[in-house]
Amino acid sequence: MTYKLTYFDVKGRAEIIRFLFSYMNVDFEDRRIEREQWPSIKPTTPFGQLPLLEIDGKELNQSLSISRYLAKKAGLAGKDEWESLLIDIAVDNINEMRQVIINYFHEKNEDIKSKQIITIVNETIPFYVERFEKIISENDGYFVNGKLSWSDLYFVSILDTIQHVTKVDLIEGHPHLTLLKQRVLAVPQIKSWIAKRPNPVY
Amino acid sequence: MTYKLTYFDVKGRAEIIRFLFSYMNVDFEDRRIEREQWPSIKPTTPFGQLPLLEIDGKELNQSLSISRYLAKKAGLAGKDEWESLLIDIAVDNINEMRQVIINYFHEKNEDIKSKQIITIVNETIPFYVERFEKIISENDGYFVNGKLSWSDLYFVSILDTIQHVTKVDLIEGHPHLTLLKQRVLAVPQIKSWIAKRPNPVY
Repeated sequence: MTYKLTYFDVKGRAEIIRFLFSYMNVDFEDRRIEREQWPSIKPTTPFGQLPLLEIDGKELNQSLSISRYLAKKAGLAGKDEWESLLIDIAVDNINEMRQVIINYFHEKNEDIKSKQIITIVNETIPFYVERFEKIISENDGYFVNGKLSWSDLYFVSILDTIQHVTKVDLIEGHPHLTLLKQRVLAVPQIKSWIAKRPNPVY
Repeated sequence: MTYKLTYFDVKGRAEIIRFLFSYMNVDFEDRRIEREQWPSIKPTTPFGQLPLLEIDGKELNQSLSISRYLAKKAGLAGKDEWESLLIDIAVDNINEMRQVIINYFHEKNEDIKSKQIITIVNETIPFYVERFEKIISENDGYFVNGKLSWSDLYFVSILDTIQHVTKVDLIEGHPHLTLLKQRVLAVPQIKSWIAKRPNPVY
């Protein structure tokens, strides 16, 4: 199989895919396009969006669907249907918070934007992060059933992007989330990926 | 197993779950709360949202994660990991369009709202619907691999809500989508559910 991942030179939605390939020690082409290239590439993509993964030339969009597929191969998608369900729910909850933040990031109207960031910092982030902290405290240090799953990798993969956009470090003041990040970053394949990856600020 | 689904008395995000239970001929409690009850129920939910499914008392949120779990049991989630991936991508693409429309529905500012609906009707909906129509024309009448999957059920389950919010009937002028809707509604268990369900306008 050949894998070609196309995205911008940022972590964003693609970093979970890069984490999963790295976790499996699977080679992939990590194509990072310039913003100026995007207008000419956009119309050639299935739904006008990146990331895009080509598997043996077949083009796939939707980063979380792609990640779930890779996570199954990596053994990070649950031992049975019930565990997979709990992992999917964790991912969707994390993604829901991320989406609110990314909608703010893309908002063009400065008046709306300045109101949104106040709500995000004072309400949205605390709401989700308190719940995540509690879930991890009740699940022996991971999002689901006391063991590493792609929901843990996904959470850690978006931290830099969220901090860049909101200036909030999600794990600060949250001991269980802090430990989770340390644990994920200590996984040898992830550690090695982070040591060698291109490292844009977000 | 006992299943209790809590949602408002609308189709919205819960109808795909109701479709899947019906498809499997599995009994579930279809609890529909009044809007006035919501403020007192909201703080008791895991992430302040509905729908909520209780399986033997265990509370689960995130309708698409729940639907994927049920779809596996129903045999509608793909015959292998690759097919499951294609189905997940179809669902996420449909959901992305739905989310733009629902964000508009929840927008409070009338100026913003009146601009958004123009973009949705003239750009967002045509963009997605043309792609869906093409996908179905290339996959023998279904979203994935020429056979019924939960992506087909999901698409049909949200049509009434989208029409209520945008006044656009997504399938109009799209023969393949029109046939898809007819096919899904002709599945005996779905037909029987629709004949007996409570039928709010959206």
